[in-house]
Amino acid sequence: MKKKIKKINAAILIIGNEILSGRTQDKNIAFISNWLNLKCGISVKEVRIIPDVEKTIVENILFLSKKFNYVFTTGGIGPTHDDITAQSISKAFNVKYEYHKEAYTILENYYGKKKFNDGRKKMARMPKGAKLIYNPSSAAPGFKTKNVLSLPGVPSILISMIENCKKFLNKGLKVHSQTINLYTVESNIAKQLGLIQKKYKKFVDIGSYPFFRLGKIGVAIVIRSIYILKLKIVEKEILKLIMSKKIKILKI
Amino acid sequence: MKKKIKKINAAILIIGNEILSGRTQDKNIAFISNWLNLKCGISVKEVRIIPDVEKTIVENILFLSKKFNYVFTTGGIGPTHDDITAQSISKAFNVKYEYHKEAYTILENYYGKKKFNDGRKKMARMPKGAKLIYNPSSAAPGFKTKNVLSLPGVPSILISMIENCKKFLNKGLKVHSQTINLYTVESNIAKQLGLIQKKYKKFVDIGSYPFFRLGKIGVAIVIRSIYILKLKIVEKEILKLIMSKKIKILKI
Repeated sequence: MKKKIKKINAAILIIGNEILSGRTQDKNIAFISNWLNLKCGISVKEVRIIPDVEKTIVENILFLSKKFNYVFTTGGIGPTHDDITAQSISKAFNVKYEYHKEAYTILENYYGKKKFNDGRKKMARMPKGAKLIYNPSSAAPGFKTKNVLSLPGVPSILISMIENCKKFLNKGLKVHSQTINLYTVESNIAKQLGLIQKKYKKFVDIGSYPFFRLGKIGVAIVIRSIYILKLKIVEKEILKLIMSKKIKILKI
Repeated sequence: MKKKIKKINAAILIIGNEILSGRTQDKNIAFISNWLNLKCGISVKEVRIIPDVEKTIVENILFLSKKFNYVFTTGGIGPTHDDITAQSISKAFNVKYEYHKEAYTILENYYGKKKFNDGRKKMARMPKGAKLIYNPSSAAPGFKTKNVLSLPGVPSILISMIENCKKFLNKGLKVHSQTINLYTVESNIAKQLGLIQKKYKKFVDIGSYPFFRLGKIGVAIVIRSIYILKLKIVEKEILKLIMSKKIKILKI
């Protein structure tokens, strides 16, 4: 069990006043986090939501890109004045904010020369040296600058682009997950669950999340680990605890 | 227009592995942010989502509570081993983590002496000097420590408690908001909209958010300001721009 394991992590930086103000319900965090975990074995360790303010974007890009293996940004790469992600990342890494030749060509071909106006041209400006993340649904590419991958904020477009991020990512180990749904209250099993967590804390994370379903109160116990065998052992111990307490398991 | 205005801001700190892993879709951010804005005139300026790790919680509490007028935490105040918000805030502010007498009494009365087990007792432990945020739906109170207000993660319980936060908050000025929904693409108006934003940048924030509805592409222009008159002036200028471009306004 002492073998060196490759844990790769990421942060998500949501850029946009509309999410902060509560006007728009974010859907990208859960999507990106699930995708990274299931497809790439990468765990998201922190998420931040910040306004469209250059100084704030620069500070957060610098901090998160140092602390985590990858940073995913969403939002702020469109054609309008409040889209300042590309210029802010350029500033953060002290590189030129300039036209990316291939992005320019892609956008010019997509819109046609006549309709390729200033706003649309802006979407071809990126940090110098950025690599493109292709966009099959609306042409305007995302881009990768050092370990920062920048995607749009519109969920349907982001979803269509996510697979194109894969080639830029080193894969980590998949986190396996097992959920046991119970008709009980958290406090009924809290103490013993805490002891099991303590015993296996090096290998396994146990979470406990209350839910309400059809008027009944329940708890979802979620066991997460990169070690499938340890996960199974912990699952057995928890099932034993549940039996001893005569708690009903809910099949979903 | 030079009068001193009272701008009050806040940060939200979501504590919970289940949100980070993508297992659970957060609903609290949009709710708290809307409520603070509409009911208290307080703007949320930053949101962070972090794991159930004491060191991380301590660091973030210290940073955010210094930087913003208020910090709202959600999650981690239940009875299980992964609920460590109260102890972490105690550590951050270097105060004792101890039983809160009134919280203990509330919980003991709610569960009855016999069913008041260790897990449930844990919910009465708080940072020394904390003020209670009463919970009309499931008894276990939230609490306020300095400028940090701690609420549960379950949305329905959080919603039932939010009005009880009001007495701890200084009111700021309400941010007025006006949305114009257009059937056009962002780049069609990006340049002129940028100029209008520049002209009024001291008073008004203009956001531009693409949407898809019934197979059509549109843009929502959102004008936000604490100055209702300036907002109306900007709205007029944008409507003039829209007329000149013969763009269709979408009534919702």
